[in-house]
Amino acid sequence: MKLWQKGIDVDKQVEDYTVGKDHLLDQRLVPYDCRASIAHARMLAKIGILSKKELHDLEVGLTGILSLHGQGDFTITKEDEDCHTAIERHLTDSYGETGKKIHTARSRNDQVLIAIRLYEKDALDTISSRMTSLQEALAKLVAAYGNTPIPGYTHMQKAMPTTIGCWLGSYILSLEDTKGLLPGIFSMVDQSPLGTAAGFGVPILKIDREMTAKELGFSRVQENPMHAQLSRGKTEGAITHLCSQASLDCNRLATDLILFSTPEFGYLRLPEKFCTGSSIMPQKKNPDVLELARANYHVVLGEQAKIQGIIGNLMSGYNRDLQLTKEPLFNAIDMTLSTLSIMSLVVSGLVIDHEACKKAMTKELYATEEAYKLVKKGMPFREAYREIARRM
Amino acid sequence: MKLWQKGIDVDKQVEDYTVGKDHLLDQRLVPYDCRASIAHARMLAKIGILSKKELHDLEVGLTGILSLHGQGDFTITKEDEDCHTAIERHLTDSYGETGKKIHTARSRNDQVLIAIRLYEKDALDTISSRMTSLQEALAKLVAAYGNTPIPGYTHMQKAMPTTIGCWLGSYILSLEDTKGLLPGIFSMVDQSPLGTAAGFGVPILKIDREMTAKELGFSRVQENPMHAQLSRGKTEGAITHLCSQASLDCNRLATDLILFSTPEFGYLRLPEKFCTGSSIMPQKKNPDVLELARANYHVVLGEQAKIQGIIGNLMSGYNRDLQLTKEPLFNAIDMTLSTLSIMSLVVSGLVIDHEACKKAMTKELYATEEAYKLVKKGMPFREAYREIARRM
Amino acid sequence: MKLWQKGIDVDKQVEDYTVGKDHLLDQRLVPYDCRASIAHARMLAKIGILSKKELHDLEVGLTGILSLHGQGDFTITKEDEDCHTAIERHLTDSYGETGKKIHTARSRNDQVLIAIRLYEKDALDTISSRMTSLQEALAKLVAAYGNTPIPGYTHMQKAMPTTIGCWLGSYILSLEDTKGLLPGIFSMVDQSPLGTAAGFGVPILKIDREMTAKELGFSRVQENPMHAQLSRGKTEGAITHLCSQASLDCNRLATDLILFSTPEFGYLRLPEKFCTGSSIMPQKKNPDVLELARANYHVVLGEQAKIQGIIGNLMSGYNRDLQLTKEPLFNAIDMTLSTLSIMSLVVSGLVIDHEACKKAMTKELYATEEAYKLVKKGMPFREAYREIARRM
Amino acid sequence: MKLWQKGIDVDKQVEDYTVGKDHLLDQRLVPYDCRASIAHARMLAKIGILSKKELHDLEVGLTGILSLHGQGDFTITKEDEDCHTAIERHLTDSYGETGKKIHTARSRNDQVLIAIRLYEKDALDTISSRMTSLQEALAKLVAAYGNTPIPGYTHMQKAMPTTIGCWLGSYILSLEDTKGLLPGIFSMVDQSPLGTAAGFGVPILKIDREMTAKELGFSRVQENPMHAQLSRGKTEGAITHLCSQASLDCNRLATDLILFSTPEFGYLRLPEKFCTGSSIMPQKKNPDVLELARANYHVVLGEQAKIQGIIGNLMSGYNRDLQLTKEPLFNAIDMTLSTLSIMSLVVSGLVIDHEACKKAMTKELYATEEAYKLVKKGMPFREAYREIARRM
Repeated sequence: MKLWQKGIDVDKQVEDYTVGKDHLLDQRLVPYDCRASIAHARMLAKIGILSKKELHDLEVGLTGILSLHGQGDFTITKEDEDCHTAIERHLTDSYGETGKKIHTARSRNDQVLIAIRLYEKDALDTISSRMTSLQEALAKLVAAYGNTPIPGYTHMQKAMPTTIGCWLGSYILSLEDTKGLLPGIFSMVDQSPLGTAAGFGVPILKIDREMTAKELGFSRVQENPMHAQLSRGKTEGAITHLCSQASLDCNRLATDLILFSTPEFGYLRLPEKFCTGSSIMPQKKNPDVLELARANYHVVLGEQAKIQGIIGNLMSGYNRDLQLTKEPLFNAIDMTLSTLSIMSLVVSGLVIDHEACKKAMTKELYATEEAYKLVKKGMPFREAYREIARRM
Repeated sequence: MKLWQKGIDVDKQVEDYTVGKDHLLDQRLVPYDCRASIAHARMLAKIGILSKKELHDLEVGLTGILSLHGQGDFTITKEDEDCHTAIERHLTDSYGETGKKIHTARSRNDQVLIAIRLYEKDALDTISSRMTSLQEALAKLVAAYGNTPIPGYTHMQKAMPTTIGCWLGSYILSLEDTKGLLPGIFSMVDQSPLGTAAGFGVPILKIDREMTAKELGFSRVQENPMHAQLSRGKTEGAITHLCSQASLDCNRLATDLILFSTPEFGYLRLPEKFCTGSSIMPQKKNPDVLELARANYHVVLGEQAKIQGIIGNLMSGYNRDLQLTKEPLFNAIDMTLSTLSIMSLVVSGLVIDHEACKKAMTKELYATEEAYKLVKKGMPFREAYREIARRM
Repeated sequence: MKLWQKGIDVDKQVEDYTVGKDHLLDQRLVPYDCRASIAHARMLAKIGILSKKELHDLEVGLTGILSLHGQGDFTITKEDEDCHTAIERHLTDSYGETGKKIHTARSRNDQVLIAIRLYEKDALDTISSRMTSLQEALAKLVAAYGNTPIPGYTHMQKAMPTTIGCWLGSYILSLEDTKGLLPGIFSMVDQSPLGTAAGFGVPILKIDREMTAKELGFSRVQENPMHAQLSRGKTEGAITHLCSQASLDCNRLATDLILFSTPEFGYLRLPEKFCTGSSIMPQKKNPDVLELARANYHVVLGEQAKIQGIIGNLMSGYNRDLQLTKEPLFNAIDMTLSTLSIMSLVVSGLVIDHEACKKAMTKELYATEEAYKLVKKGMPFREAYREIARRM
Repeated sequence: MKLWQKGIDVDKQVEDYTVGKDHLLDQRLVPYDCRASIAHARMLAKIGILSKKELHDLEVGLTGILSLHGQGDFTITKEDEDCHTAIERHLTDSYGETGKKIHTARSRNDQVLIAIRLYEKDALDTISSRMTSLQEALAKLVAAYGNTPIPGYTHMQKAMPTTIGCWLGSYILSLEDTKGLLPGIFSMVDQSPLGTAAGFGVPILKIDREMTAKELGFSRVQENPMHAQLSRGKTEGAITHLCSQASLDCNRLATDLILFSTPEFGYLRLPEKFCTGSSIMPQKKNPDVLELARANYHVVLGEQAKIQGIIGNLMSGYNRDLQLTKEPLFNAIDMTLSTLSIMSLVVSGLVIDHEACKKAMTKELYATEEAYKLVKKGMPFREAYREIARRM
């Protein structure tokens, strides 16, 4: 039975449509809901809604769910709708009336919000550390091959000399720029919505929101309950944007690597164990992994578009539309994390062909340098430029 | 073992990343691959590559897979990568060498393309018939309540009188406009890529592409093999655009229905069995189903953005990026189909509050009519307009 | 004075914000509004609202505006708001009361709609003929160099042999697919909204909508006035999607051309007069024009996203939001037209380096062919594949 | 003559296509290029490339351009291509050889980058202060009407009691969240690219990048020249995302205001001087300004999509595609700034209808409170919920 059912059956097709994939998506939220529920129960005990015994039972019950989940044994059925109902049902099955009391002084709205935020804080930390890993993988390559010269390109045409160090180093710095976006987004997430209930607070009861915020590691309480609702989707849009920026770094790097590993360029190659073949062409060793890393940027952008589209033109206060921001958020985070990982792996295995690089350092790359030699001798730059252009 | 393996192991993480969700997504393609494989096998028999016995075995094998799939018993493992490998493996398990021969004169590229196109043709037909169902549901409501007057709005402010019939009739016509986009898209899909192999045709062997095209119900062969590759993603973008147009019709209708079913407007109500409640507020009967129909438009737009983003800036010929157009295509189609269905259901159950509609027909709605009465008596429209404005 | 002013001044900042760029954007709509206004005036004369003399004056006035516009001398000021007001003001300045009568039995809503649709029909025709021109330019190149062999690529790695003819021919066919989308979209545009007024028709007066529709070359009247409003933005989304498909063809072709004109690939080159240089590097000859053609695809996608985003979650009936679909529509059309033109020009000037192409036909391109030779001799394909893979 | 011309004429149509709208768009960059050019000239003087006299001439020349621009008298012609060429041409016209020397040790690439970043820093500051103004306007309204009760809504259905203070206060806080994103983005912008030339630094000459960075108020030098190129578009994507977040706050607020000012809700009204009328309906007072504020969110999202789309799948190093990120950046910033301003104005003028608000406080809004009264008396929440549901 749903948390909100009053005895009238909901049409089966309507039920399927509204539940959507929540019972599948919500698996990842189980531990976060359990943590939040424990904190909520402790607060309820503190203000006298739950007895010590009741609190103990709920803590045991929720800890049990956590370990079931850890073993892959906590299932959310379509009838449960989502993880929040599944958890409450589980507690009610085990402890009857006590299980029912856990929902006092909260609404599914703030319950969902708090679980998602706890998840988001973890996700942001993981994205950050994966970016660091990719930076480290790049730094190792720079340490090993940094001075190897390669042509620098503009307009995909040879331009001026550069080095493996400068080229790969630019990606380390670009990732650093992406990281710089993190604190602002983290701070948006890092405010506890627990206790805002359905967006208008909890009437009558005096709850202790500071206590739950502190217990769950939030730096502050989100005081205004309508603000909690207004920030749903907005926060997810910002996180997805971060994902798009990290994915962009990977997209650009993958684009370079695909190009530089063609035989026509030939500056590097992927180890064979990272390549896949063709079902019809015996000779093929394909950089599929990089092509997918490249494509995933656009997937993340699509998820960003979904979230930012869904939340537009909506009246304030909770609207069910917001449910559909969950899947694109999860997907954007998953794609970003797996792409960052795979890029670290690929970068670690890259083989730079030093000879091919050197061979590619043809004379037109030095035209600018030649012009500046004339400048050094006193010729105005514009004249030196035309002089060298004539010589090419 | 993959179709393209040559004895070198692919890194496990790379394998996971490249396979992605294909083994899950591809379930829906199993029947289409089987149909295409049967047609391909018959053609191979006709040109002498397969013996009668071999053809018979493959037909039995593929028909068996079709019925396994129908019972939900055909599984694609992560090791299989996708449905195409799973099907070939199944045939090889059953018929040894014969199973291996099915891949003669095709590549996984055209195998994927043909299966997806067969699926797409079915999907387009289903979208079309679901649009018709929604039109019929709307027409029934128009037949029943067509003459009931309601205020017409511009800028969300009362403007001029209209009727339930005019209002809902406009959605019937908008869906008709959407249907008008279908033939052009269908025709893009309706060309057989089977035999284009990896995008450069099949060397040496003389295959009969007309035969397979005809057997599979395509109106023509896609002659140029590079064209087959170039149309991948492009076609999916067009289909997803169609989905977005059908979803837009639903989005606009849902927006009206949500607004008109607020107590403040009150022109209609959803039957309770279509409503869901709140976990904290006992009185709530919420139009969640319509909010999700509204939000799904943005999900479909996000899928369109993914597909159209992925295929940009790609060199011609197959690129692995294209694999990632599959999930957004499937998701856009699923969301569109389920939203069209749910809208038909909701429309069928709608209750129009005739009294509330009549009561809302207040005098400012007739201001334009009053002005035109003065025009009829000979006053220039601009003067009549100002005269009536003064009286309001 | 605005068409709708009643004596209360509108705040200046509000006025600036609401007028936006319409007075600039609307230049292109002037001839279409004049044509529609003439048809409207004739209809008003036919039903007795205008006298013969009045009709004559208006026809002379509107024809005068048309020729002023043709000479670049018809200006729309910010005070006019848009072309529709500017035209009416011009008529009123010249003919007093008669000028005011032109607005009888129409609203700015249907006036805008009819002008935009007339423009759109022209734009769709022009897009179609520019696509044909690009196809013709490609066909000429195919006629000249069609048999020149080039490597076919998958995953940006050499795959199998192909030819200039097959490669460029695939773009001719892709453009043909794009053209196939046109009739459905054209038909959506090709219904006359004139007479739907503000979305609820014209009260009291008996207007002749068939007459104006026929005079303006529409194949049918858009009967339901709310449908006329509902199709605004929806139609523009479909047109912009067409633009994105034509731009995609250009994007993919430009991507190939940029790559193939790098010295590393070297299969072709752009004539110098199509190249631009660098302000610092004397040797550079850059394919800027192709890079911009590539980038414009994403610009068009952005315009599509704007239009499809703006119209979501809007109540039916006119909403001012729709005004903002005009600029992205115009921009998408302009970018598509200029990109198609520039691609025709570039393709016409391309120089294929026959020798470089031949030299690139290295042996791995024939691996599949070798495998099929073994198949022809009786070896199962999978074995032949592994045999050839071993030999590479 | 272009900065890069060598004597071969560029095709006129190619020139038009490549220049695009830069000569119009670049007006706003003129002061920033002048400032950067002055700093660059001073550095060139310091390292001995320019004499004191030459520096003096250039400073006078650039200051002159600044004041011409301030009077609206500095024009950039299509032949100039962009502001950078126009400024150099102006200097060369005035000072001959000296004018030509200004381009020593820089490329148009870093010249464009530095001017855009200076502009971006200003734009970010202005966005921030406009957000503060809107917060202040909201705070004034809260101070005046904060305690007025209004219904809180979920699913657009009456949910629980709230107040004007809580409702509008939530927007103040949401804007604060948006501001929290600023420092990370500002820091990405706040690194000086001057001296990175075409993305590979300046050969031969020893330039002083710290000096120009400091003179122009940058907190640090962007050391790695390839990083400077890699951050182009990426930075603009981040800024546009900020714009989308600020525009979202306006979109949501506008949506509420439009709804609450319908007669059906009636909680507030816009002063007439902010409303516009209809050309056909004499009674209309429409909230066009809010509808455009709502729609502009989607315009900004479209600009974000353009920028993030353009930069994907591009090889590192400068690509001309990047030129097309300029217009969407400018447009997103302009739309955000004007929307923030207009919202401040509208909020300042809002009239709350205290009586209508009070009248809307119907009993179902207190159902949750009633349930909690039963909880207070000892009934488990789930039972209290069902009890109150029965009573409604």
